[in-house]
Amino acid sequence: MPPSYLMPEAGTEKSHLPTPALLIDSTALEDNLAAMAHFFEGKPAKLRPHFKTHKCPILARKQIEAGAIGLTCAKLGEAEVLVEAGIDDILIANEIVDPVKIDRLAELARQSRLIVAVDQYDNLRQISEAALRAGSLVNIVIEVDVGLRRCGVQPGNPALALARQAVQLGGIHFAGVLGYEGHAVFVTDAEQRARQAGDAMQALVATAELIRQAGLPVEIVSAGGTGTYNLTGAFPGVTEVEAGSYPFMDTKYRRLGLPFRCALSLLATVISTPAPDRAIIDAGLKVLATDNGLPEVISPSGVRLAALNEEHGRLEVDPAQAVLHVGDRVELLPSHVCTTVNLHDRYYVLGDGRLVEIWPISGRGKSQ
Amino acid sequence: MPPSYLMPEAGTEKSHLPTPALLIDSTALEDNLAAMAHFFEGKPAKLRPHFKTHKCPILARKQIEAGAIGLTCAKLGEAEVLVEAGIDDILIANEIVDPVKIDRLAELARQSRLIVAVDQYDNLRQISEAALRAGSLVNIVIEVDVGLRRCGVQPGNPALALARQAVQLGGIHFAGVLGYEGHAVFVTDAEQRARQAGDAMQALVATAELIRQAGLPVEIVSAGGTGTYNLTGAFPGVTEVEAGSYPFMDTKYRRLGLPFRCALSLLATVISTPAPDRAIIDAGLKVLATDNGLPEVISPSGVRLAALNEEHGRLEVDPAQAVLHVGDRVELLPSHVCTTVNLHDRYYVLGDGRLVEIWPISGRGKSQ
Repeated sequence: MPPSYLMPEAGTEKSHLPTPALLIDSTALEDNLAAMAHFFEGKPAKLRPHFKTHKCPILARKQIEAGAIGLTCAKLGEAEVLVEAGIDDILIANEIVDPVKIDRLAELARQSRLIVAVDQYDNLRQISEAALRAGSLVNIVIEVDVGLRRCGVQPGNPALALARQAVQLGGIHFAGVLGYEGHAVFVTDAEQRARQAGDAMQALVATAELIRQAGLPVEIVSAGGTGTYNLTGAFPGVTEVEAGSYPFMDTKYRRLGLPFRCALSLLATVISTPAPDRAIIDAGLKVLATDNGLPEVISPSGVRLAALNEEHGRLEVDPAQAVLHVGDRVELLPSHVCTTVNLHDRYYVLGDGRLVEIWPISGRGKSQ
Repeated sequence: MPPSYLMPEAGTEKSHLPTPALLIDSTALEDNLAAMAHFFEGKPAKLRPHFKTHKCPILARKQIEAGAIGLTCAKLGEAEVLVEAGIDDILIANEIVDPVKIDRLAELARQSRLIVAVDQYDNLRQISEAALRAGSLVNIVIEVDVGLRRCGVQPGNPALALARQAVQLGGIHFAGVLGYEGHAVFVTDAEQRARQAGDAMQALVATAELIRQAGLPVEIVSAGGTGTYNLTGAFPGVTEVEAGSYPFMDTKYRRLGLPFRCALSLLATVISTPAPDRAIIDAGLKVLATDNGLPEVISPSGVRLAALNEEHGRLEVDPAQAVLHVGDRVELLPSHVCTTVNLHDRYYVLGDGRLVEIWPISGRGKSQ
């Protein structure tokens, strides 16, 4: 349990929280969950949101309550956190190849429906052997490279060949295919994004059809990110969408004009005002990710984040618009929500500018 | 306590550790501690290494055993971890300005010698009041801007004015001045680096002299980083050096030609080999920092890190030099050791390619 000064009581004003503090605007979060649920109402495809973004079991349960069929995650350690939290339908959207991890996976499958991505026969066989030892059933989706050029077999016959091998093995169940159109998710031109996502989904759905024509049932056709949820989620034949960032958003996703609000911010404190046009905050690279560029200042106005050092942020202040004092709070909008959350242990959830709850980020650091 | 599969027994081979794993080469680490201790032997200046880099109390104690007079840290939460670990002489090299934190600081000073940076009168007064309430003594160093243009008062009279105010207040002890020549630390041209560090230290030492001439004792003149330890550490009048990265080093520090070896690496596993010239590892932006650029592959040879995504690293493989298989281990050298350590919960300490010990990174996440 963290010390009490890191866990203020409900009702505490935002300006009295210990900084740097990762804040959730609970209204914006609820709006985002509702907007996504609304999109999937009556659609053949269902939402299986990605845990890698928020890493928070409380938020995962909210997503299930809003209609999600289960969770997606990136790491076996994250799946363990989800099972511990009572989530009973989990897709690990990556290959798990280490023998010790494969045994952990097979054990975990005794407690929950687990689905894991595979793109290679040896891995299939090892998972089968581990599941037979554990007396469990591991569901398999074959990862197909739909243009991202990362993991996965090529669409069509290579995927079919692996599916045929999968159904021959005990302890595993061939459940379908997975293909992430990550190369399309951030294309800012909406028409181009739609074309690239469409091409990718065409390849994935055609692969699923090819496998079905060979007599093998394909239940799962999984794809999608927040940038393509509405394209991929409406593409005939896609059954599940793995969007992760929509609960929170960030400066990079904001550019796409999606119907989600920015719900996550970082609260910092001014620790030094050495000149009228410069102020230093207690938030640097260790609490704000910069792999998508510098975060933006939300408030106060007249202030711009000029640089992040390890432990400090340097603000440029327009003295005509703003005067900052030591102790003032500054709120920033992350440029990449997933890698920023990855730096923190807890969310301070706010409503009407006051603390409502504190949610542990239990999946942080579960990269192994 | 982490689960047993994350805590393998001593003697486990490197290739059997759970990945992604942060590795310490214990021989290189000991060599680095010894080389730094050797430099400070017989010098008037002493070493007070920075905890922000390694965040590990076990390593902090090793630094004390090697002759360090105490530890430097960046955050109050880090100082609390150090006190808990029995370190009894701690410099917080930043301003602590929040009233709740100032009370924590004053309380903590009942258990350990604490020194904190100050650059503003209101902050001095608040620390004094908190220390009087707590019945403790907080040591103060005045932060001087020696050219970095971050926090700090200007050299000379502004520092003297604040020192005069400090000695009037109860509960605090004016101990000296601090000035970080961060603008010089990474200058690759050795002559230019020496000149810039020299100019900065001249300003800092002259400020200390000015304060002494006003009748106020100055015990501490604190400065320095790993890139300038030998310049600042030999500069007449400097009493303490705050170097942080020398135990581990990284690709950025390696360029400076210092007598320290790279002792920290990240072990990853190949999870997919979709093409002869491409392999994907289980290490991405959530376990490797990129604020100083991409990390480098140490082994195997013939392999280059082309990109890091959130959860994946993409390797370019020269098929004439290397063939990678799923399950193979790949070892990488971080580009920025401090921000990379900040992503991890434990070190796997190796000797002769086998696990010796596991050290918790207890200071990680203690940013508040």
